[in-house]
Amino acid sequence: MDADPDVTEFLHREIPITRAMGVKVVSGSPGPLIVEAPLALNHNHLGTAFGGSLSTIATVAGYAFVWLELRDRSAHVVIRDSTIKFRRPVRADLRATCHPPKADILSAFRSEFARKDKARLQLRVEIKDDDALAVEFVGIFVAIKGAAR
Amino acid sequence: MDADPDVTEFLHREIPITRAMGVKVVSGSPGPLIVEAPLALNHNHLGTAFGGSLSTIATVAGYAFVWLELRDRSAHVVIRDSTIKFRRPVRADLRATCHPPKADILSAFRSEFARKDKARLQLRVEIKDDDALAVEFVGIFVAIKGAAR
Repeated sequence: MDADPDVTEFLHREIPITRAMGVKVVSGSPGPLIVEAPLALNHNHLGTAFGGSLSTIATVAGYAFVWLELRDRSAHVVIRDSTIKFRRPVRADLRATCHPPKADILSAFRSEFARKDKARLQLRVEIKDDDALAVEFVGIFVAIKGAAR
Repeated sequence: MDADPDVTEFLHREIPITRAMGVKVVSGSPGPLIVEAPLALNHNHLGTAFGGSLSTIATVAGYAFVWLELRDRSAHVVIRDSTIKFRRPVRADLRATCHPPKADILSAFRSEFARKDKARLQLRVEIKDDDALAVEFVGIFVAIKGAAR
Protein backbone atom coordinates (compact mmCIF):
# COMPACT_ATOMS: atom_id res chain seq x y z
CA MET A 1 0.00 0.00 0.00
CA ASP A 2 2.38 2.69 -1.22
CA ALA A 3 0.05 5.04 -3.00
CA ASP A 4 -2.44 7.18 -1.11
CA PRO A 5 -5.09 6.96 -3.89
CA ASP A 6 -5.15 3.24 -3.09
CA VAL A 7 -6.08 4.00 0.51
CA THR A 8 -8.77 6.47 -0.52
CA GLU A 9 -10.20 3.93 -2.96
CA PHE A 10 -10.13 1.23 -0.28
CA LEU A 11 -11.94 3.50 2.19
CA HIS A 12 -14.64 4.49 -0.32
CA ARG A 13 -15.22 0.89 -1.33
CA GLU A 14 -15.20 -0.71 2.12
CA ILE A 15 -16.52 2.10 4.38
CA PRO A 16 -19.32 3.79 2.41
CA ILE A 17 -19.75 6.73 4.74
CA THR A 18 -16.22 7.90 3.84
CA ARG A 19 -17.40 8.25 0.24
CA ALA A 20 -20.47 10.23 1.34
CA MET A 21 -18.12 12.52 3.30
CA GLY A 22 -15.79 12.97 0.32
CA VAL A 23 -12.82 11.77 2.40
CA LYS A 24 -9.43 11.78 0.64
CA VAL A 25 -6.05 10.65 1.96
CA VAL A 26 -3.81 13.38 0.54
CA SER A 27 -0.49 12.58 2.18
CA GLY A 28 0.87 9.49 3.86
CA SER A 29 3.78 7.42 5.08
CA PRO A 30 6.46 8.46 5.67
CA GLY A 31 5.57 11.63 7.53
CA PRO A 32 2.23 12.99 8.72
CA LEU A 33 -0.88 11.28 7.40
CA ILE A 34 -3.28 13.92 6.10
CA VAL A 35 -6.96 13.34 5.31
CA GLU A 36 -9.25 15.97 3.80
CA ALA A 37 -13.00 16.30 3.26
CA PRO A 38 -15.04 19.20 1.86
CA LEU A 39 -17.04 21.40 4.22
CA ALA A 40 -19.95 21.30 1.72
CA LEU A 41 -20.59 17.63 2.59
CA ASN A 42 -19.73 17.91 6.29
CA HIS A 43 -21.27 21.09 7.67
CA ASN A 44 -23.67 21.43 10.57
CA HIS A 45 -26.67 23.70 11.07
CA LEU A 46 -24.31 26.62 11.79
CA GLY A 47 -22.39 26.24 8.54
CA THR A 48 -19.24 25.04 10.32
CA ALA A 49 -17.82 21.52 10.36
CA PHE A 50 -20.12 18.98 12.05
CA GLY A 51 -18.66 17.40 15.21
CA GLY A 52 -19.49 13.91 13.96
CA SER A 53 -17.61 14.50 10.71
CA LEU A 54 -14.61 15.92 12.60
CA SER A 55 -14.54 12.88 14.83
CA THR A 56 -14.85 10.57 11.83
CA ILE A 57 -12.12 12.22 9.76
CA ALA A 58 -9.77 12.06 12.76
CA THR A 59 -10.60 8.35 13.18
CA VAL A 60 -9.92 7.76 9.47
CA ALA A 61 -6.56 9.55 9.72
CA GLY A 62 -5.45 7.31 12.58
CA TYR A 63 -6.78 4.24 10.87
CA ALA A 64 -4.98 5.04 7.59
CA PHE A 65 -1.77 5.84 9.45
CA VAL A 66 -1.70 2.38 11.05
CA TRP A 67 -2.58 0.67 7.80
CA LEU A 68 0.17 2.45 5.84
CA GLU A 69 2.63 1.96 8.68
CA LEU A 70 2.20 -1.82 8.71
CA ARG A 71 2.08 -2.23 4.93
CA ASP A 72 0.35 -5.55 5.53
CA ARG A 73 -2.80 -6.12 3.52
CA SER A 74 -3.89 -8.84 5.92
CA ALA A 75 -3.93 -6.48 8.92
CA HIS A 76 -7.25 -5.46 10.39
CA VAL A 77 -7.24 -2.13 12.17
CA VAL A 78 -9.85 -1.19 14.75
CA ILE A 79 -10.20 1.69 17.18
CA ARG A 80 -10.36 0.86 20.87
CA ASP A 81 -11.09 4.25 22.39
CA SER A 82 -10.65 7.95 21.72
CA THR A 83 -10.95 11.37 23.27
CA ILE A 84 -11.70 14.49 21.29
CA LYS A 85 -11.68 18.17 22.27
CA PHE A 86 -13.39 20.78 20.14
CA ARG A 87 -11.59 24.07 20.84
CA ARG A 88 -13.04 26.25 18.12
CA PRO A 89 -15.25 25.88 15.03
CA VAL A 90 -13.76 24.72 11.74
CA ARG A 91 -15.01 27.09 9.04
CA ALA A 92 -13.28 25.68 5.96
CA ASP A 93 -12.70 22.27 4.38
CA LEU A 94 -11.75 19.64 6.95
CA ARG A 95 -8.09 18.62 7.10
CA ALA A 96 -6.94 16.12 9.73
CA THR A 97 -3.25 15.50 10.39
CA CYS A 98 -2.08 12.36 12.18
CA HIS A 99 1.38 12.99 13.59
CA PRO A 100 3.71 9.99 13.53
CA PRO A 101 4.78 8.82 17.00
CA LYS A 102 8.51 8.77 17.79
CA ALA A 103 10.62 6.22 15.91
CA ASP A 104 11.17 3.96 18.94
CA ILE A 105 7.42 3.75 19.62
CA LEU A 106 6.70 2.88 15.99
CA SER A 107 9.47 0.33 16.00
CA ALA A 108 8.08 -1.31 19.15
CA PHE A 109 4.61 -1.36 17.57
CA ARG A 110 5.87 -3.08 14.41
CA SER A 111 7.89 -5.67 16.31
CA GLU A 112 4.99 -6.45 18.64
CA PHE A 113 2.72 -6.92 15.63
CA ALA A 114 5.28 -9.25 14.01
CA ARG A 115 5.71 -11.25 17.24
CA LYS A 116 2.12 -11.42 18.52
CA ASP A 117 0.02 -10.77 15.38
CA LYS A 118 -1.57 -7.97 17.38
CA ALA A 119 -0.38 -4.58 18.62
CA ARG A 120 -1.80 -1.27 19.81
CA LEU A 121 -0.72 2.27 19.04
CA GLN A 122 -1.79 5.61 20.50
CA LEU A 123 -2.12 8.31 17.86
CA ARG A 124 -2.69 12.06 18.01
CA VAL A 125 -4.66 13.79 15.28
CA GLU A 126 -5.12 17.56 14.92
CA ILE A 127 -7.51 19.62 12.84
CA LYS A 128 -6.86 23.33 12.39
CA ASP A 129 -9.03 26.28 11.48
CA ASP A 130 -6.72 28.54 9.51
CA ASP A 131 -3.59 28.24 11.61
CA ALA A 132 -5.31 27.82 14.95
CA LEU A 133 -5.71 24.42 16.59
CA ALA A 134 -9.43 23.62 16.44
CA VAL A 135 -9.73 19.91 17.27
CA GLU A 136 -7.49 17.61 19.29
CA PHE A 137 -8.05 13.85 19.00
CA VAL A 138 -6.19 11.04 20.73
CA GLY A 139 -7.09 7.47 19.85
CA ILE A 140 -5.88 3.97 20.63
CA PHE A 141 -5.79 1.81 17.51
CA VAL A 142 -5.31 -1.95 17.46
CA ALA A 143 -3.93 -3.87 14.50
CA ILE A 144 -4.78 -7.55 14.24
CA LYS A 145 -3.29 -9.98 11.77
CA GLY A 146 -6.11 -11.46 9.71
CA ALA A 147 -6.77 -13.40 6.56
CA ALA A 148 -5.40 -11.88 3.35
CA ARG A 149 -8.02 -9.85 1.55
CA MET B 1 -40.08 20.72 18.82
CA ASP B 2 -42.37 18.00 20.09
CA ALA B 3 -42.29 15.50 17.30
CA ASP B 4 -39.25 13.39 16.62
CA PRO B 5 -39.81 13.38 12.82
CA ASP B 6 -39.22 17.13 13.03
CA VAL B 7 -35.81 16.53 14.57
CA THR B 8 -34.90 13.94 11.94
CA GLU B 9 -36.00 16.31 9.19
CA PHE B 10 -34.00 19.15 10.75
CA LEU B 11 -30.89 16.97 10.96
CA HIS B 12 -31.17 15.77 7.36
CA ARG B 13 -31.70 19.29 6.07
CA GLU B 14 -29.04 21.07 8.13
CA ILE B 15 -26.39 18.37 8.64
CA PRO B 16 -26.16 16.50 5.31
CA ILE B 17 -23.98 13.66 6.57
CA THR B 18 -26.84 12.55 8.86
CA ARG B 19 -28.92 11.98 5.74
CA ALA B 20 -26.11 9.98 4.09
CA MET B 21 -25.96 7.87 7.28
CA GLY B 22 -29.73 7.32 7.30
CA VAL B 23 -29.96 8.72 10.86
CA LYS B 24 -33.42 8.70 12.44
CA VAL B 25 -34.53 9.96 15.84
CA VAL B 26 -36.95 7.22 16.86
CA SER B 27 -37.73 8.20 20.46
CA GLY B 28 -37.32 11.41 22.38
CA SER B 29 -38.22 13.64 25.29
CA PRO B 30 -39.37 12.70 27.82
CA GLY B 31 -37.27 9.61 28.46
CA PRO B 32 -34.25 8.21 26.65
CA LEU B 33 -33.41 9.75 23.29
CA ILE B 34 -32.87 6.99 20.74
CA VAL B 35 -31.25 7.43 17.34
CA GLU B 36 -30.95 4.68 14.76
CA ALA B 37 -29.05 4.22 11.49
CA PRO B 38 -28.83 1.20 9.17
CA LEU B 39 -25.67 -0.92 9.17
CA ALA B 40 -25.85 -1.03 5.34
CA LEU B 41 -24.85 2.66 5.19
CA ASN B 42 -22.47 2.59 8.14
CA HIS B 43 -20.36 -0.54 7.96
CA ASN B 44 -16.59 -0.77 7.87
CA HIS B 45 -14.28 -3.10 5.93
CA LEU B 46 -15.07 -5.90 8.38
CA GLY B 47 -18.85 -5.65 7.88
CA THR B 48 -19.42 -4.28 11.40
CA ALA B 49 -20.36 -0.72 12.34
CA PHE B 50 -17.69 1.85 11.44
CA GLY B 51 -16.14 3.62 14.45
CA GLY B 52 -16.70 7.01 12.84
CA SER B 53 -20.40 6.29 12.35
CA LEU B 54 -20.72 5.05 15.94
CA SER B 55 -19.10 8.22 17.21
CA THR B 56 -21.33 10.35 14.99
CA ILE B 57 -24.60 8.66 15.95
CA ALA B 58 -23.68 9.05 19.64
CA THR B 59 -22.96 12.73 19.04
CA VAL B 60 -26.30 13.15 17.28
CA ALA B 61 -28.13 11.46 20.16
CA GLY B 62 -26.62 13.87 22.68
CA TYR B 63 -27.21 16.82 20.41
CA ALA B 64 -30.88 15.90 19.84
CA PHE B 65 -31.38 15.28 23.56
CA VAL B 66 -30.26 18.81 24.42
CA TRP B 67 -32.30 20.32 21.64
CA LEU B 68 -35.51 18.52 22.69
CA GLU B 69 -34.80 19.23 26.35
CA LEU B 70 -34.61 22.99 25.83
CA ARG B 71 -37.52 23.20 23.40
CA ASP B 72 -36.08 26.50 22.21
CA ARG B 73 -35.72 26.87 18.47
CA SER B 74 -33.22 29.69 18.93
CA ALA B 75 -30.78 27.49 20.87
CA HIS B 76 -27.55 26.46 19.21
CA VAL B 77 -26.07 23.25 20.50
CA VAL B 78 -22.41 22.38 20.09
CA ILE B 79 -20.21 19.61 21.46
CA ARG B 80 -17.23 20.65 23.56
CA ASP B 81 -15.50 17.31 24.10
CA SER B 82 -16.20 13.61 24.23
CA THR B 83 -14.70 10.27 25.14
CA ILE B 84 -15.72 7.02 23.49
CA LYS B 85 -14.86 3.42 24.31
CA PHE B 86 -15.41 0.64 21.80
CA ARG B 87 -15.88 -2.54 23.82
CA ARG B 88 -17.07 -4.92 21.12
CA PRO B 89 -18.15 -4.77 17.46
CA VAL B 90 -21.70 -3.75 16.55
CA ARG B 91 -22.97 -6.29 14.02
CA ALA B 92 -26.51 -5.00 13.43
CA ASP B 93 -28.20 -1.68 12.72
CA LEU B 94 -26.83 1.12 14.91
CA ARG B 95 -29.00 2.24 17.82
CA ALA B 96 -27.72 4.90 20.22
CA THR B 97 -29.48 5.64 23.49
CA CYS B 98 -28.89 8.90 25.34
CA HIS B 99 -29.89 8.46 28.97
CA PRO B 100 -31.44 11.51 30.61
CA PRO B 101 -29.40 12.88 33.53
CA LYS B 102 -31.08 13.09 36.93
CA ALA B 103 -33.91 15.58 37.29
CA ASP B 104 -31.93 18.03 39.48
CA ILE B 105 -29.10 18.16 36.94
CA LEU B 106 -31.54 18.81 34.10
CA SER B 107 -33.29 21.45 36.14
CA ALA B 108 -29.99 23.22 36.89
CA PHE B 109 -29.11 23.07 33.17
CA ARG B 110 -32.41 24.66 32.16
CA SER B 111 -32.24 27.40 34.76
CA GLU B 112 -28.62 28.23 33.87
CA PHE B 113 -29.62 28.47 30.20
CA ALA B 114 -32.52 30.77 31.09
CA ARG B 115 -30.28 32.97 33.30
CA LYS B 116 -27.05 33.11 31.26
CA ASP B 117 -28.23 32.25 27.73
CA LYS B 118 -25.61 29.50 27.86
CA ALA B 119 -25.29 26.21 29.73
CA ARG B 120 -23.40 22.94 29.53
CA LEU B 121 -24.57 19.39 30.09
CA GLN B 122 -22.69 16.10 30.33
CA LEU B 123 -24.49 13.26 28.59
CA ARG B 124 -23.92 9.52 28.44
CA VAL B 125 -24.80 7.58 25.29
CA GLU B 126 -24.71 3.80 24.92
CA ILE B 127 -24.81 1.56 21.87
CA LYS B 128 -25.47 -2.14 22.30
CA ASP B 129 -24.78 -5.20 20.19
CA ASP B 130 -27.70 -7.49 20.91
CA ASP B 131 -27.98 -7.00 24.66
CA ALA B 132 -24.30 -6.44 25.35
CA LEU B 133 -22.86 -2.97 25.85
CA ALA B 134 -20.70 -2.29 22.78
CA VAL B 135 -19.95 1.46 22.86
CA GLU B 136 -19.81 3.93 25.75
CA PHE B 137 -19.80 7.63 24.91
CA VAL B 138 -19.65 10.58 27.30
CA GLY B 139 -19.88 14.07 25.86
CA ILE B 140 -20.10 17.65 27.11
CA PHE B 141 -22.67 19.64 25.14
CA VAL B 142 -23.09 23.40 25.28
CA ALA B 143 -26.32 25.19 24.44
CA ILE B 144 -26.09 28.84 23.42
CA LYS B 145 -29.01 31.16 22.92
CA GLY B 146 -28.93 32.44 19.36
CA ALA B 147 -31.07 34.18 16.79
CA ALA B 148 -34.39 32.53 15.99
CA ARG B 149 -34.11 30.32 12.94
